[in-house]
Amino acid sequence: MKQINKIAIVGGTHGNEFTGAYLVKKFEQYPNLIQRSSVKTVTLLSNPQAFAANKRYIDKDLNRCFSSDDLSDLTLSSHEDEQAKNIQNTLGKDGKYPVDLIVDLHSTTANMGLTIIPGSRHPFILQLAAYLSSINPEVKVCYSRPEQARNFLSSVCELGFVIEVGPVAQGVLSAEWFQKTEQLIVTILDYLERCNQGIIPQINNSLTIYKYLEFVDYPRNQNGEIQAMIHPQLQFRDYEPLHPGEPIFLTLNNQAIAYTGTSTVYPVFINEAAYYEKGIAMCLTEKEEITI
Amino acid sequence: MKQINKIAIVGGTHGNEFTGAYLVKKFEQYPNLIQRSSVKTVTLLSNPQAFAANKRYIDKDLNRCFSSDDLSDLTLSSHEDEQAKNIQNTLGKDGKYPVDLIVDLHSTTANMGLTIIPGSRHPFILQLAAYLSSINPEVKVCYSRPEQARNFLSSVCELGFVIEVGPVAQGVLSAEWFQKTEQLIVTILDYLERCNQGIIPQINNSLTIYKYLEFVDYPRNQNGEIQAMIHPQLQFRDYEPLHPGEPIFLTLNNQAIAYTGTSTVYPVFINEAAYYEKGIAMCLTEKEEITI
Repeated sequence: MKQINKIAIVGGTHGNEFTGAYLVKKFEQYPNLIQRSSVKTVTLLSNPQAFAANKRYIDKDLNRCFSSDDLSDLTLSSHEDEQAKNIQNTLGKDGKYPVDLIVDLHSTTANMGLTIIPGSRHPFILQLAAYLSSINPEVKVCYSRPEQARNFLSSVCELGFVIEVGPVAQGVLSAEWFQKTEQLIVTILDYLERCNQGIIPQINNSLTIYKYLEFVDYPRNQNGEIQAMIHPQLQFRDYEPLHPGEPIFLTLNNQAIAYTGTSTVYPVFINEAAYYEKGIAMCLTEKEEITI
Repeated sequence: MKQINKIAIVGGTHGNEFTGAYLVKKFEQYPNLIQRSSVKTVTLLSNPQAFAANKRYIDKDLNRCFSSDDLSDLTLSSHEDEQAKNIQNTLGKDGKYPVDLIVDLHSTTANMGLTIIPGSRHPFILQLAAYLSSINPEVKVCYSRPEQARNFLSSVCELGFVIEVGPVAQGVLSAEWFQKTEQLIVTILDYLERCNQGIIPQINNSLTIYKYLEFVDYPRNQNGEIQAMIHPQLQFRDYEPLHPGEPIFLTLNNQAIAYTGTSTVYPVFINEAAYYEKGIAMCLTEKEEITI
């Protein structure tokens, strides 16, 4: 494995997710916290206009603008399309300041704890994820679909991943999640430093991953209006098993709606505020033990 | 006391506070739920444009547009100023459909439980609040300052009050808070019905109220940027006593900042997302037992 000498810590890709944005602001004030002898770290507040406006985005979701098709499409000129091209032209492999690894910091209203979403299945990222989850049970690893992940900011770099933390409301700075995320970043930097020194930290060779199976939307009427809520028994139960027949929604009129699948699944991003407009009430995943 | 025969249940005054907005949608579908033999109830989704946009407001905070000065100022023509005038011209005492009582449903990211904020200190509202808090300890009663309350939508009617529920994230529909709020509304309607029948429900003659003393802003630098977060020991501790010397903030650099007041206070609206832009990290209140 080649050395990881230049990395980027990115926050505020969604402007109303304050944990990452304020961590970037902290690291700008105290840059020594994120430097290691073999690792030079840069920070990026990736959508400062959206952060200033306290909105997820100005025109469109920045974290869906990074497919190579979109980046090379000169007709796409929204604020976020322009911003994506700028970031690619800075941190990308042909950019002005190419980095070896990107950590993109997000938060969620779902009970995702500290979730790592790798941009690829590169063994180095899986080893890092296994190390992080072995020392902190709150760390979970989720595989999104490759056709999604290639739209993410973290895809600018082969070794890119998202950290999703929560539950935390949009537009709220939570000391708990700020501290937990900062501690995770410190652990990652120390791990990279040791890898560069040839000291691969001891890890389990197995890793639990949650692989996206499908998205489930809210029940809606013919006008698209939501007719049911996440069932109270499912709320905040991200990563817990959901068995066939168990309730997932409660209609406004107080009727439970059951999960009709035939196998046990593990829902994540349950009741994420930003996904209402995407038609996603939760993502169903399957749990898998992999050997790395 | 005169009869309370016509009331309005209002939701979505802030478009990203879903509990009230979806309760109004439910009651539109099932109007019988909110009718009583002596009480005719109308519903109002008060800022449908902000609800459709999933934003607190389009131009300005609708719940700060109802002072009599602003309502009579023809030069104020923002979306919310126009909407406020429409609501006044509908539900107000000289309006097309004057009501005797208004309940305006809000939600908050702070741990406010089920908070009643009376628009005035009218004895009827205090008796109702005392009844509600006597049968449900999660019900608290907060007095905002009169100079604030007169800007609220609920001030359109002498017998108006706000219900604030939480913690719940903006843009999230929470079954727990939906159900608790609906139950509270049912209790209120049943109470009004019995009052109209001359059966005043038995209540304690004392009521605990929390009176606004002052707002506390986040520590900021000279550019107005936030330099500290709500201290983890204070987060979600709304209505609990805060003693002099106890920590209220934690700087980004991990330094605790203590409360420097000289008396015990009771903070509310701690870390409310919508108040960052208002320069409010929390509201300090004093606790008082009143006899009604």
